[in-house]
Amino acid sequence: MTGLILACDFGGTKLSAAVIEAADVDQPDAAWRGQLRRLAPPGASAQTDIEMMMGMGRELLAGERPSHIGISFGGPVDYKRGLVRLSHHVPGWENVPIRQLFANEFGAPTQVDNDANVAALGEWRFGAGRGVADLLYVTVSTGVGGGWILDGRPYRGATGMAGEIGHTVVDPNGPVCLCGKRGCVERLSSGPYMAQDVAQARGLPVEDVTGKLVAEWAAVGETTAVAILERGARGLGVGLGNAANLLNPRRIVLGGGVTKSGAGWWQLVRHTAQMTALPEVEFDIVPAQLGDDAPLWGAVALGE
Amino acid sequence: MTGLILACDFGGTKLSAAVIEAADVDQPDAAWRGQLRRLAPPGASAQTDIEMMMGMGRELLAGERPSHIGISFGGPVDYKRGLVRLSHHVPGWENVPIRQLFANEFGAPTQVDNDANVAALGEWRFGAGRGVADLLYVTVSTGVGGGWILDGRPYRGATGMAGEIGHTVVDPNGPVCLCGKRGCVERLSSGPYMAQDVAQARGLPVEDVTGKLVAEWAAVGETTAVAILERGARGLGVGLGNAANLLNPRRIVLGGGVTKSGAGWWQLVRHTAQMTALPEVEFDIVPAQLGDDAPLWGAVALGE
Repeated sequence: MTGLILACDFGGTKLSAAVIEAADVDQPDAAWRGQLRRLAPPGASAQTDIEMMMGMGRELLAGERPSHIGISFGGPVDYKRGLVRLSHHVPGWENVPIRQLFANEFGAPTQVDNDANVAALGEWRFGAGRGVADLLYVTVSTGVGGGWILDGRPYRGATGMAGEIGHTVVDPNGPVCLCGKRGCVERLSSGPYMAQDVAQARGLPVEDVTGKLVAEWAAVGETTAVAILERGARGLGVGLGNAANLLNPRRIVLGGGVTKSGAGWWQLVRHTAQMTALPEVEFDIVPAQLGDDAPLWGAVALGE
Repeated sequence: MTGLILACDFGGTKLSAAVIEAADVDQPDAAWRGQLRRLAPPGASAQTDIEMMMGMGRELLAGERPSHIGISFGGPVDYKRGLVRLSHHVPGWENVPIRQLFANEFGAPTQVDNDANVAALGEWRFGAGRGVADLLYVTVSTGVGGGWILDGRPYRGATGMAGEIGHTVVDPNGPVCLCGKRGCVERLSSGPYMAQDVAQARGLPVEDVTGKLVAEWAAVGETTAVAILERGARGLGVGLGNAANLLNPRRIVLGGGVTKSGAGWWQLVRHTAQMTALPEVEFDIVPAQLGDDAPLWGAVALGE
């Protein structure tokens, strides 16, 4: 493939874009020809975000027409129809035909998918999942979401909703999640929920505690933080082990801020997942490699 | 396709075989040209089962060479290599190259897979899953197992172990399963485990109670049977809802004896699964249509 690839990432509050020469993509030291990151304006709408992103694209392309465009969106996407379904953070995103808008603006074939699927694709193509045909990628951050590579290609489900491991139930007697159920993986394992549980147990204002702080307190032995972080690691481990029994992936890649909670967290997640999976179901659990750039790298791969 | 297809089903204690004209397979009233069912001899080994099945095949084919052969096996199979890994019921099945043995004997291309994957394929091709690209088939019987059709083709996982929904954990405080974990779907929902729990709660000999009897007692309002059957339906429902969140299949097909437990059981399974899945994850749950013949019909499709 030749020409320039434009990769775009619509986060909740951040917009990122980058271009790369298609011929460079598989070089060992592949690097962006250019990259831009901007905060979305306060009070942004879909319209302002799209205009800013298109401006960033034009700036990076400097008049060249790209060979293809990949777009990662932080919210539910209808991949087949190229629509953003909605945003949980920014108004005006209901059923926006983002694929068509970018294809028209830049005159290039465009694909769009949600950030978990795109990050899964990025880690598979360029990161911790290279060479593996069957892969589950999970981000453990403010939420818990995932994406699949199965039989060597992205799997999105009947309506593009596959990968919602965060709302699988691992303890029907666990605490209540915003989704209405008890003991979802996200309720037990995500940063904000762990912070909320520690704050409430210690009688602290919720806004003073973060998932990062919980991990730091746990690292120095604060008992509530240790208990909540371990409960989260076990909950995630059961969810990953269940997913392994259901799909028998070769590898599970974990990304997101909560994965920086230390060796004890990793050990407990891995141990619980292995104990939950049948002995014949073999897999490894490894850290993501692409960090914040995973959606951009995945967007590069999206149009291939 | 033309010629005869030979379909073979190695159950735990029963051997079945059938032949069909390839040209008839897609007729609305497609029927076997011939079908044989035999009890395996008491004290059977892999060797005696294979000899009996080959004899049944020769009898059905009456000297004709089949165009292809499909084999369903009631135990773990390495599909890619055409090996039976082992049987939990019959000795001597460790790493038996069943594909090669049948291909040599009958001079025809042969495929082999485990009974859950084959039944999933059968229901998808000829039964309750026709026309659906993304499907989970689950049998709820003496065990709980499953098979996937994803993006319009069977999905088996990295080492052929996908579909083990029976050993996903839905209640970490539940009763202990033979696999060592607590609250597996199979521990809560399979016939023998429900029978065991009712027998123990009522102080009856375990051998006097069956899963079928639990359903019959529940139907007339016996309180222990009602409670155990409902716990099983809820456990299965959480497992199915979790699977739906993870893979977003369009349809879930349920087969096996426990699915004959009445409308209340179905209602509770469906309700729990829908409540467990996110609102955007839409699917239906329907009864299998092929009954005991599902593995044979799936075996027909296996070589296509």
